[in-house]
Amino acid sequence: MRLSTLRHACRNLPTPSVHQPRTGVRVFGLAKSSLPLGPSSNSQLLLRAASSVSGTTSAEKAPKLGKQTDGPGYENTIRENVQRTKEEMVALQRGHPALKPTLAIIQADEDDRLLELNKKMAGKIGLNVTQICLPRECTEDEIIEEVLKLNEDPRVHGVYLHLPPASLTIVITLYVSEDHGMEMSGVGPLTAALRMQNVVQSSSRWAQGQQYRPWTLRSLKLQPLSPVPSDIEISRAQTPKPVDQLAQEIGLLQEETEAYGRTKAKVRLSLLDRLREQPDGKYVLVAGITPTPLGEGKSTVVIGLVQALSAHLKLNSFACLRQPSQGPTFGVKGQRGQISTRISMLEISMLINESFNLHLTGDIHAITAANNLVAAAIDARMLHEATQKDKALYSRLVPSVNGVRRFSPIQISRLRVSPPNSLPKVLCVLAIVQLPRPVMSLKPPLGVVDTNDRFLRKITVGQASTEKGHVRETQFDIAVASEIMAILALADGLGDMKTRLGRMVVGSSRSGQPVTAEDLGVSGALAVLMKDAIKPTLMQTLEGSPVFVHAGPFANIAHGNSSVLADKLALKLVGEDGFVVTEAGFGADIGMEKFFNIKCRASGLRPNVVVLVATVRALKMHGGGPNVSAGSPLPREYIDEVRHWRESTLHGLKQGSTTIFVVRGNVSLLRVDSLAEIDLVCQMAKESGASDAVPCHHWARGGRGSVELAQAVKQAGSQPSHFQFLYSQETPIVEKIRMIAQKVYGADDIELSPEAQAKIDYYNQQGYGKLPICMAKTHLSLSHMPEKKGTPTGFTLPIRDIRASIGAGFIYPLVGTMSTMPGLPTRPCFYDIDLDPVTEEITGLF
Amino acid sequence: MRLSTLRHACRNLPTPSVHQPRTGVRVFGLAKSSLPLGPSSNSQLLLRAASSVSGTTSAEKAPKLGKQTDGPGYENTIRENVQRTKEEMVALQRGHPALKPTLAIIQADEDDRLLELNKKMAGKIGLNVTQICLPRECTEDEIIEEVLKLNEDPRVHGVYLHLPPASLTIVITLYVSEDHGMEMSGVGPLTAALRMQNVVQSSSRWAQGQQYRPWTLRSLKLQPLSPVPSDIEISRAQTPKPVDQLAQEIGLLQEETEAYGRTKAKVRLSLLDRLREQPDGKYVLVAGITPTPLGEGKSTVVIGLVQALSAHLKLNSFACLRQPSQGPTFGVKGQRGQISTRISMLEISMLINESFNLHLTGDIHAITAANNLVAAAIDARMLHEATQKDKALYSRLVPSVNGVRRFSPIQISRLRVSPPNSLPKVLCVLAIVQLPRPVMSLKPPLGVVDTNDRFLRKITVGQASTEKGHVRETQFDIAVASEIMAILALADGLGDMKTRLGRMVVGSSRSGQPVTAEDLGVSGALAVLMKDAIKPTLMQTLEGSPVFVHAGPFANIAHGNSSVLADKLALKLVGEDGFVVTEAGFGADIGMEKFFNIKCRASGLRPNVVVLVATVRALKMHGGGPNVSAGSPLPREYIDEVRHWRESTLHGLKQGSTTIFVVRGNVSLLRVDSLAEIDLVCQMAKESGASDAVPCHHWARGGRGSVELAQAVKQAGSQPSHFQFLYSQETPIVEKIRMIAQKVYGADDIELSPEAQAKIDYYNQQGYGKLPICMAKTHLSLSHMPEKKGTPTGFTLPIRDIRASIGAGFIYPLVGTMSTMPGLPTRPCFYDIDLDPVTEEITGLF
Repeated sequence: MRLSTLRHACRNLPTPSVHQPRTGVRVFGLAKSSLPLGPSSNSQLLLRAASSVSGTTSAEKAPKLGKQTDGPGYENTIRENVQRTKEEMVALQRGHPALKPTLAIIQADEDDRLLELNKKMAGKIGLNVTQICLPRECTEDEIIEEVLKLNEDPRVHGVYLHLPPASLTIVITLYVSEDHGMEMSGVGPLTAALRMQNVVQSSSRWAQGQQYRPWTLRSLKLQPLSPVPSDIEISRAQTPKPVDQLAQEIGLLQEETEAYGRTKAKVRLSLLDRLREQPDGKYVLVAGITPTPLGEGKSTVVIGLVQALSAHLKLNSFACLRQPSQGPTFGVKGQRGQISTRISMLEISMLINESFNLHLTGDIHAITAANNLVAAAIDARMLHEATQKDKALYSRLVPSVNGVRRFSPIQISRLRVSPPNSLPKVLCVLAIVQLPRPVMSLKPPLGVVDTNDRFLRKITVGQASTEKGHVRETQFDIAVASEIMAILALADGLGDMKTRLGRMVVGSSRSGQPVTAEDLGVSGALAVLMKDAIKPTLMQTLEGSPVFVHAGPFANIAHGNSSVLADKLALKLVGEDGFVVTEAGFGADIGMEKFFNIKCRASGLRPNVVVLVATVRALKMHGGGPNVSAGSPLPREYIDEVRHWRESTLHGLKQGSTTIFVVRGNVSLLRVDSLAEIDLVCQMAKESGASDAVPCHHWARGGRGSVELAQAVKQAGSQPSHFQFLYSQETPIVEKIRMIAQKVYGADDIELSPEAQAKIDYYNQQGYGKLPICMAKTHLSLSHMPEKKGTPTGFTLPIRDIRASIGAGFIYPLVGTMSTMPGLPTRPCFYDIDLDPVTEEITGLF
Repeated sequence: MRLSTLRHACRNLPTPSVHQPRTGVRVFGLAKSSLPLGPSSNSQLLLRAASSVSGTTSAEKAPKLGKQTDGPGYENTIRENVQRTKEEMVALQRGHPALKPTLAIIQADEDDRLLELNKKMAGKIGLNVTQICLPRECTEDEIIEEVLKLNEDPRVHGVYLHLPPASLTIVITLYVSEDHGMEMSGVGPLTAALRMQNVVQSSSRWAQGQQYRPWTLRSLKLQPLSPVPSDIEISRAQTPKPVDQLAQEIGLLQEETEAYGRTKAKVRLSLLDRLREQPDGKYVLVAGITPTPLGEGKSTVVIGLVQALSAHLKLNSFACLRQPSQGPTFGVKGQRGQISTRISMLEISMLINESFNLHLTGDIHAITAANNLVAAAIDARMLHEATQKDKALYSRLVPSVNGVRRFSPIQISRLRVSPPNSLPKVLCVLAIVQLPRPVMSLKPPLGVVDTNDRFLRKITVGQASTEKGHVRETQFDIAVASEIMAILALADGLGDMKTRLGRMVVGSSRSGQPVTAEDLGVSGALAVLMKDAIKPTLMQTLEGSPVFVHAGPFANIAHGNSSVLADKLALKLVGEDGFVVTEAGFGADIGMEKFFNIKCRASGLRPNVVVLVATVRALKMHGGGPNVSAGSPLPREYIDEVRHWRESTLHGLKQGSTTIFVVRGNVSLLRVDSLAEIDLVCQMAKESGASDAVPCHHWARGGRGSVELAQAVKQAGSQPSHFQFLYSQETPIVEKIRMIAQKVYGADDIELSPEAQAKIDYYNQQGYGKLPICMAKTHLSLSHMPEKKGTPTGFTLPIRDIRASIGAGFIYPLVGTMSTMPGLPTRPCFYDIDLDPVTEEITGLF
């Protein structure tokens, strides 16, 4: 066996995998705890050539500690050593009860005496031992492979190679410093004792590596230019830090990230376990006043604020953003109903996107695939049910394989009876009857695409002759409005997501019972499709601050907040004194209301600070200014400075501040574009209940332009916050809707269509009455009428229909004429998008 | 400035990015060649503290070479050095004409004398110089950032920091060995000369790193068990090599891969440039005889063969496979029309998929998104055209921004006239008329999903009131049958893919002219969506052999071959004596015929060896055995050994061998499951024209079970191969179809429907007559009738309809009743698929 090869193989240690325990067929007694391993680059390989060792006796004759190999001195040394190690072990396990220090032994020698000695010593100290037996004539490659496997195994803290005489005795210990390592000569009892000591110390060092790591964030310097260059130019001029470096700077372990190219990485949820005891940072929500159709740059405030906090105030901070939908990306910037476009693209432009692609890490595609699998499952099931008799259906759903019929686990979980072969005949018939045979009326949509295809708003499917006349009307929604997107954004972990996916109600049976994804047998497949999407994607801002991009529900037709998991991971990572800035889509009446009553209720998190973004433009428009629309020149009123503001001009701000802050009481801050109007607006904001109001200039100056905002947020974060829900979950559905309509929108009352009322009765009957409410309402007005600006009064809010997203966990009233599929304009902005095939540079995206 | 920080920053060198040149606003004179940088871990940082240097003069007084600073000795040393470096430079550029050795100077000192000295010296030697000017008061961080940027810039081979006196003079040279580096003391002419020498040597070392690198593949040992465990168990028991290690073993540079998680990486196409001069390896095609509905394991032959070649014969080899579609993954294993399912899942099970997910690296999702963007663009355009007058349409398509109307570059490329503002009035009107206003009759499909949703085979869209009655009938296809998938599989590079995407014909205008994706203005956006999908995904087999997974067109309704680019990259990587094994879908009549006449025509590649896979089961069935179907027990005829084969039993094999080998003349090999029948079959195969015929046992024994096959392939690869196309591209469309029908399928003649004939006339008129033919035909028979086994004769092949994939570059006849959207059975296999939310283990996929 060539030493150099082994040394080489062990230096090229692969990144250890967490939560993917190998089923090592020849590994016995492996401890079950799956604690992640520290950076493998620290691992050390200790090699010792046991010169012509043959068997236990002669091996014992080769101690190199300069001490006698027998007699009371030798015995005492061993005893002392064992005693000390035992004490270290006790101390270690007191601090880390879940940790099970483990020594792995690779054995290719039939002489068991030395092995027994080592095992006995391990037993004395309380170490776990894992034994891997290789054939005596095994090759070097086989041994290397085992070593590499063990190096990857987070449950193993030391490796002992027990090879045949005339070969090598090699001890590979993870995380042992050279000082300790080199003492490990000799193969007798003292060596064994020292070996055990090393494993305990290695475990201890591993446990230390698991603790919260302080940040060492290196900020990137922006070179603000005047005039401000285009977003893509700014973005290209910056060289991002490699994502693994960013991950290290913010205290992530190497095995907690999965790189996707050079500048993006998914972060594993195991982080939440590792930092369970770590206190959360401050939780900052950025919301906005009712915007103009151009959008008011709320997401850029998130980025600017985080850059100011981290790069300028040197406070750990994290931005949590939603993933932009491809649909509006190819539509029109700032077009009505697609404001998220502009916001999303701006926000992305503030990230560094050298390797930016529109798919990011594929989460929305996973959602689309999952949705469409449900759709295909429904379609197929309906057809096969309609065209087969009970018995035939049963024999296909529970096919006989080699004469044995078996339910799949998913079927069993729905049947709640024992498998069919163990059933008496009567029960078997019952099982047939109980097999879900349900799909009659279907909840829309049929499927989703991440594209603005207006022709899919209402369609008829099943018209091919192969579908035997089972034609029906349905629709496609845009993927970001789907229930699976909402589930991704609200799930608390992989298990929770899987439960929610299975719980989705996809239709109702002939007898009126809800039919779930689990009834269709598709819930496991959905979880498989979504297993990577659940990990947030780590990116960075132009100034090198960390950002999670995760989930992307629209705020008007969905709940409009980035994911609970991204926020939770970020809150652990920033540490107690850090800040996590997350964003609620559209105006405060929509995104923020849903943040409080849906997201906070699901996550258990409570915001410490709320930043309310306003622009002079939006204030003017909602104060009575002329209409603003994308593509048209801005009316003079928005360009001229207003020195004497009409009282109505500030009405919107007052309404925003009052409505929100009477309920929550927090800080509101302003982002304004022009100069002379700022003072007045800030003053009015403070009079309306905001704890502070400051202008921001991050768009032109990066983080430096938001330092004042960051200081105000820091100050506000140190104050106690008073949070309460607008409604309790016990409140009846109608009453919840009415409270939102009256207290948030300023409506006189609500008016339910007969269809909506019937649905409410059905939901109450099914026990869905306790779910929170996710209003699908225009974001362009506090009311349901986009043209009503400012704070409309004297209106009744019409509830046209009510859907239920049982998996996501909310009831979903449709206010007025909300469409769940946007359209493309005559000249979509894809006309401007191009790719240079040589440089791979993208133009026209921003 | 703290040295330690700089040293630290420079040690954490980020991975250099290729083909994404930074627009460094303050970098002047940067050479334009964008050659990639070698592994940055080899970069070396040389630091020298210039003790109280102030200005040029005192700096010149600090030489440390132990020689005089003036006088003839000093002068001579410089002269000799410059001369030697010049010679090295000439030699270097002779070998690498595209290489431009470049020194970057970061200047933060206003004293230009030393700079001038360095520039002059560089000029003498012929080095490029890039100068970056920082303000004198710049911070340490700013300097570090510039250094990091330069370290990432593949066009720079040395960096010289020229900082103010009392600060530091630091020389950072890439790829300079320590010996050379430490000589670089002194700041006078000799130092400058040595610096130039270093840059040239660093460039030379870089150029060496660019050359072909021999493989150092480490194979993973399989532990074959009896009975053979399930695929997923085998797969889990193996620990894959980290993909970056695999990439290094097969000679990829660090910057040529983009990791997607731990076990997958995309490989950049720049590799083709780097190894332009490298001769290709041997090109091996694996095809099959007409299968049974259960599939005959052709893809597993690919994997087994590559494992045998690389792990056992120690020959460089690469497998090129298609990405499995999600649609059939959730359907039924081995169901009719979905045989690719079983094949695909088996093939994936033979890869190591510790981090396996169904999305792989998202290529099929990108294809779906691109297709559906085209669909949305068509829908929107049709509606807006139908509801707007010419002038209104024009003013929206070419909107006035600040009073100026501008065509987008994509519009200009279609108009082929100058931009509207430079046009006289008459021409401007003309431009309106020329603006494509076309979309009348649409080529199906509307869109695609990667799901088997049978209800989308025929649908009506546009039924919502917002679409104003513009209802139409259309369909969805499965994504793998789409033209964009075919384009991905046939494209030769990013530019070629972009051209093909723009060229796709999506409908015809009122006047009957074809309307392309470029006419819709969407071609740039399509290229952006597909820019990452074009890079093949590197994975590994269970024995650690490299695999490219790329593109996945179905072979019955598409052309059924993995990508041209994956094959080309692999052929360069394996080197002259290596083997690339690629696969053609379904039977030889479909996948192999298309491989020869479509793929080889497009790629210019020619196969050296063809492996024809047959099983005793398929031979028996096509020789007159009873029907075989998924889910039913195998009839006795297939289990019992047949000692006296009827002549008809071997008819299929004869037909396969004869048809194929009379045309191509290559080796045919057999994979057989049972024992006693092998000899007879092998003998018959050889009599039918195969150069060899051997049994394989890779399924049970891994690569070791295919060693005999590998040896036969190696032997066949050393023989000259005779390749010729079945038809020339000048042959008329009808004649091409007839030649395939008669010579490959054995039909008497073809019969065109009136619709097909009309389409052929139209295609000829449009100049598409020279395109090759991609038959959409059942794979279960040589004829169009799935129930006709063996070698049917006396039939006329009906051509129902003909489509054209102009972007992909083929004409696409529909033979009989081929569906482009599979369906799900009563009990889809998603019932068995599940995810353990704690271990993240997937069950039921195999």
